[in-house]
Amino acid sequence: MSKFTKLDLNSVTTNNRINVFNCILEGNKINRAVIAKKVGLSIPAVMSITEDLIEKGIIYAVGKGESSGGKRPEMLAVVPDRFFFIGVDVGRTSIRVVVMNNCRDIVYKVSKATESVEPDELIAQITEMTMSCISESKLPHDRVVGIGVAMPGLIERDTGRVLFSPNFGWNNISLQDELKRRLPFNVLVENANRALVIGEIKNMQPNPTSCIIGVNLAYGIGSAIVLPNGLYYGASGTSGEIGHIIVENHGSYCSCGNYGCIESIASGEAIARQARIAIANKIQTTIVEKCEGDFKKLEAKMVFDAAKEGDHLAESIVKKAADYIGKGLAIAINMLDPEQIILCGGLTLNGDFFIDMIKKAVSKYQMRYAGGNVKIVVGKSGHYATAIGGAWIVVNNIDFLSNN
Amino acid sequence: MSKFTKLDLNSVTTNNRINVFNCILEGNKINRAVIAKKVGLSIPAVMSITEDLIEKGIIYAVGKGESSGGKRPEMLAVVPDRFFFIGVDVGRTSIRVVVMNNCRDIVYKVSKATESVEPDELIAQITEMTMSCISESKLPHDRVVGIGVAMPGLIERDTGRVLFSPNFGWNNISLQDELKRRLPFNVLVENANRALVIGEIKNMQPNPTSCIIGVNLAYGIGSAIVLPNGLYYGASGTSGEIGHIIVENHGSYCSCGNYGCIESIASGEAIARQARIAIANKIQTTIVEKCEGDFKKLEAKMVFDAAKEGDHLAESIVKKAADYIGKGLAIAINMLDPEQIILCGGLTLNGDFFIDMIKKAVSKYQMRYAGGNVKIVVGKSGHYATAIGGAWIVVNNIDFLSNN
Repeated sequence: MSKFTKLDLNSVTTNNRINVFNCILEGNKINRAVIAKKVGLSIPAVMSITEDLIEKGIIYAVGKGESSGGKRPEMLAVVPDRFFFIGVDVGRTSIRVVVMNNCRDIVYKVSKATESVEPDELIAQITEMTMSCISESKLPHDRVVGIGVAMPGLIERDTGRVLFSPNFGWNNISLQDELKRRLPFNVLVENANRALVIGEIKNMQPNPTSCIIGVNLAYGIGSAIVLPNGLYYGASGTSGEIGHIIVENHGSYCSCGNYGCIESIASGEAIARQARIAIANKIQTTIVEKCEGDFKKLEAKMVFDAAKEGDHLAESIVKKAADYIGKGLAIAINMLDPEQIILCGGLTLNGDFFIDMIKKAVSKYQMRYAGGNVKIVVGKSGHYATAIGGAWIVVNNIDFLSNN
Repeated sequence: MSKFTKLDLNSVTTNNRINVFNCILEGNKINRAVIAKKVGLSIPAVMSITEDLIEKGIIYAVGKGESSGGKRPEMLAVVPDRFFFIGVDVGRTSIRVVVMNNCRDIVYKVSKATESVEPDELIAQITEMTMSCISESKLPHDRVVGIGVAMPGLIERDTGRVLFSPNFGWNNISLQDELKRRLPFNVLVENANRALVIGEIKNMQPNPTSCIIGVNLAYGIGSAIVLPNGLYYGASGTSGEIGHIIVENHGSYCSCGNYGCIESIASGEAIARQARIAIANKIQTTIVEKCEGDFKKLEAKMVFDAAKEGDHLAESIVKKAADYIGKGLAIAINMLDPEQIILCGGLTLNGDFFIDMIKKAVSKYQMRYAGGNVKIVVGKSGHYATAIGGAWIVVNNIDFLSNN
């Protein structure tokens, strides 16, 4: 690296082009003068960019707008199906695929149970689902910008290799390379929490001015950090592992190999496991009825449902989970003082009582006066949030406006 | 905030100017062609900047260099005492003031015991020490760019107000405004950990490519996060409070009002306090001799010295402190995956045995495979590190190259 940080004029140009495109996308039928004002560029600069985008078939002139005194201005809009971005959510229990067009509309989605966590078989399933989704939604291949694959675990940034995925039992699997060999498209593998959070943020608001942390409360627990210029990765791409913060010295064994991690008590998997152990030890609980006496059917949701109905065991499991999560969030607030924490993932679908418990725990553990501006909110993108985030990873990382 | 992030051409210009200045400073007698190559600018661009800097009396021509074929090029150097930056370290036990010139040389320094933590009296002492330092080192007032005051605690970023300083018992004190009223200079109040860390980084290397965390192990424990574009603050300016992460559910009372914070066990103050309590409870230890039986004289350093000599009590106190610090660092690594952690502050002056204990604890608590690129090193700036950092806060935040 050069010692002198040089601000790059090329990135200014690319950035201007993206701003103009997004402004047209959002405005839908918008004239050049309004674009110039909104994105803070001169009209000639906007003209040069729009001319290029029209030539590439990315935007088009839709007719004349209202006059504001002089000539009626030409209105511009984005060509709807010029580009497609595919997102794949590789979940422990199901795999979801979405197709997003360049108007950010989800034009196709599909979900199937995860058939195997064995690398070869899982890679085959991802390949098959992606290709069949492209053929079933009749996408011309040259309009598919790329496939963004959201995978739980530590992902090496430049290579998309899975370094370690505790919940899949994976070590050192070249997922991105393997998918590239099988698929005739750009493939980007990203940590699932990062994909999820970038999808939620795109859905909710513009970039943060300081920092937004998205926390995924699901089968496992992870997080992603978003700074003003985008996702934060860290020196080796492993940032955001909030679930593997150790909060109990002599705590439960965790799939990562340590003891007392937040995830070992508060994840969906851990919540279900604790209920199973309690039932095996003959603790009285209504969870037994909910799973019809079959441990294999026992899911975290049943524990939450029982807790809502006042079941003592379920209440204590959920309360402890909320306490651990709150401790983790308080740590994140002390360290990073974010403007917003977005809680996402399946566990957040269990309603306000759980979110309220978490918030209460946060204020117990948070340093007084620290993180005074933080807002804790719940994500909005639902079950396909991570897959949609995968598609956004492609939007954000492949310069389709210049190259096509 | 505008929804469209605009990259600013003005900041490109300012950035180029700073790069050229730093390049001349570092090169000392350097010609324009070499500057252009090093900072990645065209020769005409460099000529325009250097002409302006010469006109402002910031750099000067020192004669002709060696010819590399054609005319002998004009060599440039920085005028040594054109600007001065003053740094003040407001410590719990002593106040230190340094004067740094624009060649980054410390031309004057002074240290005095902190006479009072009562706001009015402390503000009077800072004012008095700063003014006498300026008069004793005979600085022309118009060459003093500003005073950077490093203060422990939560500091509101835009106002330099002290929101909360547990170790001083301060709440809501307008330190920056009060100093501005008393001093005829620019005054910037910054969190002491941020100042310390920015000073250490300037001393050691260029900006990080991902993230550097500096941890101050001293009377209290705090940290600062540095990203590629400089210090990270957070949404309310309170980021970096690693010392107030709670690592023990039923732990010691901490000056912040919580229980079980890292600082409550591992800070210099806490180490000394634990030894005092043990001695009061008649535990056998050689620390008693080191403080000549006088509890008031008992300092953390004596505990470290006794531990080195194999004293059991001292060993267990130091080991527990290292364990808590290691847990905090592991949390920071899991969350932020930094490229470097710089350990600074008085406790690090106790030698490798303590640093080794900390590193061992880190690897115990760190998530497997996470933070694979992190290096843990010890800072190098010694007792005046924080004051020097205060001066750097002025260098980094006041555009003295354009305004003067």
